[in-house]
Amino acid sequence: MVFDSKIRPITWENGMSKMLDQTIIPYEYKYVNIKTGQEMFDAIKNMIVRGAPAIGIAGAQGVVLYAQEGREGKYDSFDEYKQWLLEKADYMATSRPTAVNLMWACNEQKNVIKNSTSDVEGLIDELTQKAIEIEKDDIERCIKIGEYGAEVVPKGATILTHCNAGALATGGYGTALGVVRSAYAKDNTVQVFADETRPRQQGARLTTFELAMDGIPVTLITDGMCSYFMNKGMIDMVVVGADRIAANGDSANKIGTYTVAIAAKYHNIPFYIAAPLSTIDTSIKTGEEIPIEERSREEVTHINGKRICAEGINIINPGFDVTPHELISGIITEKGILRPDYNKSIKEAFERI
Amino acid sequence: MVFDSKIRPITWENGMSKMLDQTIIPYEYKYVNIKTGQEMFDAIKNMIVRGAPAIGIAGAQGVVLYAQEGREGKYDSFDEYKQWLLEKADYMATSRPTAVNLMWACNEQKNVIKNSTSDVEGLIDELTQKAIEIEKDDIERCIKIGEYGAEVVPKGATILTHCNAGALATGGYGTALGVVRSAYAKDNTVQVFADETRPRQQGARLTTFELAMDGIPVTLITDGMCSYFMNKGMIDMVVVGADRIAANGDSANKIGTYTVAIAAKYHNIPFYIAAPLSTIDTSIKTGEEIPIEERSREEVTHINGKRICAEGINIINPGFDVTPHELISGIITEKGILRPDYNKSIKEAFERI
Repeated sequence: MVFDSKIRPITWENGMSKMLDQTIIPYEYKYVNIKTGQEMFDAIKNMIVRGAPAIGIAGAQGVVLYAQEGREGKYDSFDEYKQWLLEKADYMATSRPTAVNLMWACNEQKNVIKNSTSDVEGLIDELTQKAIEIEKDDIERCIKIGEYGAEVVPKGATILTHCNAGALATGGYGTALGVVRSAYAKDNTVQVFADETRPRQQGARLTTFELAMDGIPVTLITDGMCSYFMNKGMIDMVVVGADRIAANGDSANKIGTYTVAIAAKYHNIPFYIAAPLSTIDTSIKTGEEIPIEERSREEVTHINGKRICAEGINIINPGFDVTPHELISGIITEKGILRPDYNKSIKEAFERI
Repeated sequence: MVFDSKIRPITWENGMSKMLDQTIIPYEYKYVNIKTGQEMFDAIKNMIVRGAPAIGIAGAQGVVLYAQEGREGKYDSFDEYKQWLLEKADYMATSRPTAVNLMWACNEQKNVIKNSTSDVEGLIDELTQKAIEIEKDDIERCIKIGEYGAEVVPKGATILTHCNAGALATGGYGTALGVVRSAYAKDNTVQVFADETRPRQQGARLTTFELAMDGIPVTLITDGMCSYFMNKGMIDMVVVGADRIAANGDSANKIGTYTVAIAAKYHNIPFYIAAPLSTIDTSIKTGEEIPIEERSREEVTHINGKRICAEGINIINPGFDVTPHELISGIITEKGILRPDYNKSIKEAFERI
């Protein structure tokens, strides 16, 4: 069953990207208009939009914005314009390093550019259609992920999640929270425990916000508490998103995910990744090859602009960690739930596309 | 080797408790004078003073403060005064439920009261001497814990700790951080990784503060990050304090400790508890009998007075968790390092007292 969610983080309207500013949630619920390629690059980098699938959509829209700027026309030929735009698409793909969806979406746009036999206006139309298609497909994929995932959610289950792999992280509906929404639509005794997810607190700020907005019961816990509740028998399963998945199933996701996966294993609690196939990067064999974004020290040392620790101390702030495939019970995709051996099941899933 | 620490969180001066206000660290470094029993009860409850050994000292001083207030004399006899004071000592012991040191110290004072054959002024003197002795003994015990613990710290080790079991949590020097101080005095290539320790951030606020003040290198990490650094081979051992230890070695400590212990086990990293024998409650067989304090929802939902999550959501805020003995490599005490089987080694340690 499909849940009727109220959340739509990013859409394309009147030649602009209309984007929910996720840096000010839960205090304000405000849309901003992104009008240029550089504005989009900065919006992705500064996490106005975040979540691997959502920044894929944003990246695709960013290429359209650059294409529109290119109308001003300092180019001798359509080919020169295309060449310039391909470079902008490559630049857009570097706004965040870990999520593969961004690279995938920018590549989709690069293929549109390369294959276009039209003119500037024609190419802008083609890129716009592609961006809209990526957004629409993403929501449909999330709904499919939700339906497949709901099948493995026990009646009355409490689902622990980390970070925000929700409607806010996607075109809408969500991946991990897509599973929650579909499960809740079938059985309204399902509930969620949300990890705060320091340093940026996406669990506290975003997951509680979107679930409260959709009327799904949610309990906020701090990141260290997960094992306590697992030990008490209060967590039935873990479902999280992913930013990049290697060919062997190793999954990069928000820092702290790996700790939750270890705790789940220790307590024999199923641990699922929910992600579209576009998150799987079959070009890399294992998680060791996934680049981990190092983010600013202020994310750790400051909360809401106020320092929380002594001065003159060291900080290391990896944005992501890699959960090894042996801790993952299944990867919930739009083509069904992939099970170990992931090398085999991932390969088969791609053959089915 | 003994490290020369600058931190003294609680002392007895001029018939008052002089206490470092730990709720305003790291922003201010300010002592407050606690003049009445009720003020001490509130100071413990509101965590002006915190850390199991330190609140033991505070509890002992609190009984002295009540004894002084009793001078006003609404009592027909010394025995009636003693009876009133015994009730105040019992009340003082309820200011925090989890730490056994508080109960132990209040009991020590109750024994002084019961055994006194003096008068009101004489008993006040006896209680004062006892409170000073508990404080002095605590520092000496911490130094011994530090020396024993330093023996198992590898050269150049990075020690992960959770919460604050430091000079600030004790009469001075610290338990877990006592181990760090003694190890650093022998080998100044030793360094610390400090978990932030949400919800109250004692790691961020207190541990980074006291280590920076003492010039010991410290890296602040968020609670979810521990496994990431363990996986990278960047953590050599974990040392934490305890609030209560059962006869079988199960150890209650700040919420999140259990998660760190599971992560350490998964990576084959030694996990030590550092605590004086007064933290061991041999009257309880296992950790299941340790009462876990449930604290206010605002500790989770607000940081520095500002809400960090959506409104209208559920909160559960256990202040502590229990690390089962099978995850503990050793318990570092003032009588040496206790090893499994803890039922046996704890019994033997108490026989040596």
